[in-house]
Amino acid sequence: MAGDMEILCVGNELLIGKTLNTNAQWIAKQATALGLTVKRVTVVADDVQEIAEAVREALGRKTQFIVTTGGLGPTFDDKTLEGVAEALNRKVAVNAEALKMVREKYEAYAREKGAAPVELTQARVKMAKFPEKAKAIPNPVGTAPGVRVDLEGTILIALPGVPSEMEAIFKENVASLFKQVSSGSGFYEESVYVEGVMESSLAPLIDRVMRDNVGVYVKSHPKGRESRPRIEVHLSILTDRGEIAEGKLRRAVAQLSGLVGKAGGKIIFG
Amino acid sequence: MAGDMEILCVGNELLIGKTLNTNAQWIAKQATALGLTVKRVTVVADDVQEIAEAVREALGRKTQFIVTTGGLGPTFDDKTLEGVAEALNRKVAVNAEALKMVREKYEAYAREKGAAPVELTQARVKMAKFPEKAKAIPNPVGTAPGVRVDLEGTILIALPGVPSEMEAIFKENVASLFKQVSSGSGFYEESVYVEGVMESSLAPLIDRVMRDNVGVYVKSHPKGRESRPRIEVHLSILTDRGEIAEGKLRRAVAQLSGLVGKAGGKIIFG
Repeated sequence: MAGDMEILCVGNELLIGKTLNTNAQWIAKQATALGLTVKRVTVVADDVQEIAEAVREALGRKTQFIVTTGGLGPTFDDKTLEGVAEALNRKVAVNAEALKMVREKYEAYAREKGAAPVELTQARVKMAKFPEKAKAIPNPVGTAPGVRVDLEGTILIALPGVPSEMEAIFKENVASLFKQVSSGSGFYEESVYVEGVMESSLAPLIDRVMRDNVGVYVKSHPKGRESRPRIEVHLSILTDRGEIAEGKLRRAVAQLSGLVGKAGGKIIFG
Repeated sequence: MAGDMEILCVGNELLIGKTLNTNAQWIAKQATALGLTVKRVTVVADDVQEIAEAVREALGRKTQFIVTTGGLGPTFDDKTLEGVAEALNRKVAVNAEALKMVREKYEAYAREKGAAPVELTQARVKMAKFPEKAKAIPNPVGTAPGVRVDLEGTILIALPGVPSEMEAIFKENVASLFKQVSSGSGFYEESVYVEGVMESSLAPLIDRVMRDNVGVYVKSHPKGRESRPRIEVHLSILTDRGEIAEGKLRRAVAQLSGLVGKAGGKIIFG
């Protein structure tokens, strides 16, 4: 659906619990702030078939964007683009634009050190091996370019797994595209803390606030225990009418505050 | 496949980037250490259809375990068990064993405070509404019981999203099951750091180490930049022959160390 996206993270290190998936959170936060709806995050191993399957599934769900992270580097286990190509029934071939970017990077590294340019070995050329008809996205801080593939109804964007590179490519070359698509939608949110009311007693109060404030989503996040409750209540609204969002949130918080007070608890802001 | 598992995390907070998915990492790490192979992590919203679809897909991949986190609490948006039931074509009904656990928790909370036991409201009973034929798993630190559903070839385990509760249930009531299944398999790993060799130059050296040390998986994680490289190299082996694992890792590290030295770099341990 328009405005929907999925995140696909590739990397064994995520599946063995070695690495915390901060990339998924970072992208989800950015995309949400830009007015998109992240529908799913999937993590798979450095395996061409696993990657291809996950891409095919996401395409089947007709999401407008698929953003992948990881697997674009020079080593044998960087397999994301092979997986994407497999999912699309395309061949992988050296992309001239990408190869130019990679070559220029190594020329710059050599200049930095005052050394002769290094050879474009197989491992280096590998970073320019793209699915056919893909476009290269410049990487402002690293070597491997990002990749953009325009499909019917879906745009797939492949970003590196190194957070600084992923974030730089996103900010410079992806965010504007997302902004354009979400055309004015924005995500507005506020958190308050409830003390002295068990989550199970808060549940019907939240139901009431949601019923009375259509469009506001209210979710409780217990931070203490049911018997000694401290609960974060997160209120959010996704709308293209930013001018009404703050008022709606304010009204919902006020109502919640009243209900919590009646139930013997209190609300703490911030 | 035997020994395979998937993790399914439920919660809008993960998809809007509000919450970092530490649960997936924690479970992945534990399961890997116990000798299982985590094949996929999926994150979906608090939506019955989304949850049901993700469960159906995981069942279709014939994974031995599905562990879900989140969505077991008392509020309207705790929908995991409804989603699981939908995927299994089962009804949701009050589970007597689970209801007993929930009731005893509230009796204990009341005793703690010297108050009369609170009423078992709809929101509280909701935590005992399980897919039919599911079993309750005691929650040592919170209110909502965990859930176990035994299916043909797959065991589904649903855990709460609050990390302390999820971890307590896992340690006390899930880890032993995993250990039993993986029957002696263990995950052995070591990290070393390479300095002075670009990742693209390290790539063929890693290829060689993997070719010469069958069973050892070697993956590079760049921590610096291609032009000023500092690369973590993670070596791992999953085997039921623990006695040979350390030796295999040691030999692989030694070979890598030699190759890196020849390439003009050095290896730093720890």
